[in-house]
Amino acid sequence: MSVSNTDGAEMEKLLIGLDFGTDSVRSVLVTENGTLLASCVHNYSRWAEGKYCDAVNNQFRQHPLDYLEGMEAVIRGVLEGQDSSRVAGIAVDTTGSTPCAVDRNGTPLAMNEKFAENPNAMFLLWKDHTAVEEAARINESSALSASTDYRMYEGGVYSSEWFWSKILHILRVDPEVRKAAFSWVEHCDWITGELAGRTDPLTMTRSRCAAGHKAMWHTDWNGLPPEEFFRGIDPLLTGVRAGLYTETHTADIPVGTLSPKWAAKLGLSTDVVIGGGGFDSHFGAIGAQIQPYELVKVIGTSTCDILIAPDVPQCVKGICGQVDGSVLPGFVGLEAGQSAFGDVYAWFKRLLGYAGKVSLPELEAEAASIPPGSTGIMALDWFNGRRTPVANQRLTGAILGLNLGSTAPVIYRALTESTAFGARAIVDCFRQGGVPVHSVAAIGGISRKSPFVMQLCADILNLPIKTAAADQTCALGSAIVASVAARVHPDLATAMRKMGAGTDRIYKPNPELVPIYEKLYRRYLDWGKLVEGEIMRHV
Amino acid sequence: MSVSNTDGAEMEKLLIGLDFGTDSVRSVLVTENGTLLASCVHNYSRWAEGKYCDAVNNQFRQHPLDYLEGMEAVIRGVLEGQDSSRVAGIAVDTTGSTPCAVDRNGTPLAMNEKFAENPNAMFLLWKDHTAVEEAARINESSALSASTDYRMYEGGVYSSEWFWSKILHILRVDPEVRKAAFSWVEHCDWITGELAGRTDPLTMTRSRCAAGHKAMWHTDWNGLPPEEFFRGIDPLLTGVRAGLYTETHTADIPVGTLSPKWAAKLGLSTDVVIGGGGFDSHFGAIGAQIQPYELVKVIGTSTCDILIAPDVPQCVKGICGQVDGSVLPGFVGLEAGQSAFGDVYAWFKRLLGYAGKVSLPELEAEAASIPPGSTGIMALDWFNGRRTPVANQRLTGAILGLNLGSTAPVIYRALTESTAFGARAIVDCFRQGGVPVHSVAAIGGISRKSPFVMQLCADILNLPIKTAAADQTCALGSAIVASVAARVHPDLATAMRKMGAGTDRIYKPNPELVPIYEKLYRRYLDWGKLVEGEIMRHV
Repeated sequence: MSVSNTDGAEMEKLLIGLDFGTDSVRSVLVTENGTLLASCVHNYSRWAEGKYCDAVNNQFRQHPLDYLEGMEAVIRGVLEGQDSSRVAGIAVDTTGSTPCAVDRNGTPLAMNEKFAENPNAMFLLWKDHTAVEEAARINESSALSASTDYRMYEGGVYSSEWFWSKILHILRVDPEVRKAAFSWVEHCDWITGELAGRTDPLTMTRSRCAAGHKAMWHTDWNGLPPEEFFRGIDPLLTGVRAGLYTETHTADIPVGTLSPKWAAKLGLSTDVVIGGGGFDSHFGAIGAQIQPYELVKVIGTSTCDILIAPDVPQCVKGICGQVDGSVLPGFVGLEAGQSAFGDVYAWFKRLLGYAGKVSLPELEAEAASIPPGSTGIMALDWFNGRRTPVANQRLTGAILGLNLGSTAPVIYRALTESTAFGARAIVDCFRQGGVPVHSVAAIGGISRKSPFVMQLCADILNLPIKTAAADQTCALGSAIVASVAARVHPDLATAMRKMGAGTDRIYKPNPELVPIYEKLYRRYLDWGKLVEGEIMRHV
Repeated sequence: MSVSNTDGAEMEKLLIGLDFGTDSVRSVLVTENGTLLASCVHNYSRWAEGKYCDAVNNQFRQHPLDYLEGMEAVIRGVLEGQDSSRVAGIAVDTTGSTPCAVDRNGTPLAMNEKFAENPNAMFLLWKDHTAVEEAARINESSALSASTDYRMYEGGVYSSEWFWSKILHILRVDPEVRKAAFSWVEHCDWITGELAGRTDPLTMTRSRCAAGHKAMWHTDWNGLPPEEFFRGIDPLLTGVRAGLYTETHTADIPVGTLSPKWAAKLGLSTDVVIGGGGFDSHFGAIGAQIQPYELVKVIGTSTCDILIAPDVPQCVKGICGQVDGSVLPGFVGLEAGQSAFGDVYAWFKRLLGYAGKVSLPELEAEAASIPPGSTGIMALDWFNGRRTPVANQRLTGAILGLNLGSTAPVIYRALTESTAFGARAIVDCFRQGGVPVHSVAAIGGISRKSPFVMQLCADILNLPIKTAAADQTCALGSAIVASVAARVHPDLATAMRKMGAGTDRIYKPNPELVPIYEKLYRRYLDWGKLVEGEIMRHV
């Protein structure tokens, strides 16, 4: 991020960007020229206690109060000691698809006393996999549809992590919630509407990013798929569509201004403009100054990968989706991702943790000293299923080629390589779909913490990888969005240039290692095909 | 072992049995009615220092002085405070194939000053895998042989662990040893000959067990394969056969009496009879009172499995070998084995040991509490290659079906299951070869230490498993062999009944679990076939 110390600095407008992640909400306060003034993190308190979750059954729910309390805390946090009157806009990104049932006023049902402790009346976090059967039903029904396959812009396979699967699951398992649900909202739309005092489900602003990627919204069919389509999936879906929306908006379009309630809570003016909501990785891509055909990888526990293209000639098979304007207006945003990345490393740490404490950086240093291709060990990174290419939550991880001399560092190296091979498979998936990938920008925890993994990715992808010089790139992206909504900057391209994160470091492929990893990658693909086939044969 | 306290007990003859294992030599002193009077263990000192070995290249060599020092120590050890004059016989078993180059007098070359530190002039321990290429050459050449496949009684595949592979390897890599080697001896033949003062390579007694299982000796072709066969493998083998043998002997035939040199060393009479040598698992089967169609499994770091049958209608494919009289005269002894069993558990302990100390019994207790078939995790037990069915040292271990919740006990359970599945595959291999398996007797460390693994084997094999009530069952088998050689008992069947180990415990299959494991075993076979195919495709 550029540092601006011009005389006019104290006259610059300020923008607040919020990023609701899995465990916490983060905020940044940034000047219109990109100087970071403050940042703040708040961990969700109910979530931290493990409330409303059941990990064994992959049930991950979040209480709306965790979001509201967190939002208040991190906005007040960054304003501490700052000139609040200079704040021109706020925008928010969240995880997704993270939907929730709401009443006629757009209030999440869990905020009603009757449903206060009912996980089905809360937000179903992106990684909640309780809707596996419902996703299967949606895919089955979609495949039978004579005219249009409504999954076509979402990679061709509808995931249990997405909007309709989750809605159908709740409708099936909880008649009380079914009766009380007037409509359904994505976390990014509801929290944005809440700030602007515009939560009426029939008129609130719905994000293009969320709707296009997770709810089968597309201009080709003038909005959501038709009522018959949903009724064909399950009669329980009858009428749900009518409580939703037809129009969606890109994030640069303002949702409104700060509601009197929130203005009072936060000590801000009701003139503060609220930008459109979106998903974290998409705003992260904005924060990282995404360029056409550059893959922005948000690398944390899992990855979310974003690419923008002025035009995409066809539907790219096997990715998570492609949505016009999901990142920048005028560009198709394409999303892909890996279901586990840092989570694979964390799993191994936990496994060894049976015996005692392990330092991943030390383990990594030992793994880094092992020559590539020397161990014969190969891992498959599907410890949390596979998101891209071709979503398949039934897949599992594997470690192959073990012998009695296989040590922890040797296995750790294979695990890190497997996550990089998974990243490579995504690049290949884009290319096979006719979308070039020229370079990679990495943001997120792993990109900052592990030069070893970043170099591994550069060597295995055979592409330069630049890492962003910012810790809160997604929240920064929200601030950039807010600056355009508030007309501080004329458009996102300009705002990105002025406020976006600079480059911290560039990892270049090592030409000597590229062919070695190329061979190992072919082996990974071969193993993967075999193991996938055998797993699916037994489903 | 039966306990005899008759009045005549002090008149009973005493027998000494020796068992040369991988790390140590063990001895027992037993009365003719099977009362254990003393036992003793001596760890090889040079071996313990890691001398002459190179684990990375699978080179495992043992110095003959380790054997001689160990033998003296454990015989003197058991005689301490006993009436030495009552000792009637000594017999010895060893690991195998564990060959060594000897000079014209039958002295291992490493006992000559010139070769004292040369690993190629020492015994090549059974698990030495330096001769992989030579084994491949022998198999290639054998397959081309127009008339007879000389591997037919050795399971159809010649292993790098065996006699001729190792001899050829040394001939190829060490011209000095090649020039100095007059002949080659198995550990069990040399150490027995040494006790009896009969080490002349041309006249010393050669064990039927060793020769038939590892050196392609068979009555069908009147001894070893013909000279042309060996010359066809490699001209370097020219003339080696001439320095070896035509006759072999079962272990009940005495080799001679104790030499004056050893009688003086040990304080024993030169009347003490020396029984024939043999391989440890075969003598262990005798110690465990092996019955026809009962599989005796010696379960330690790896397994060696022995079955005897009055008649075998055909060559059983995929086992290690079938040799008339290798265990008891008048019965065909069939050998199979798993390349790693306890070693797989030890590997996992070492892996976790990166982080801290682990107690395998505690880990096992947690693993035991997990319901079978509940984890989705499947391991392949080929961490040290595969011995049976169908030897393949290139195979490697695998752990499949991992997810982010996979814990150490869950993985440990899969590893123990995989070793039991490997045991099941051997039983199936016998049956497919037309040899019934009615029950299993287990001896060796794991059989005494792990009721969990024994019960798992009973459930997965769907066979009762009895464990022997003796710690040194192989050494006891040697003592039994000695009793027959010394004419204390008329034959091995009688001697086994009088002196053999009793039953400690019988594990019966749990009928509720049998179908669950049957399903998992089918999965193990499917995975195994896939992984094996993929590994071999890349060789």
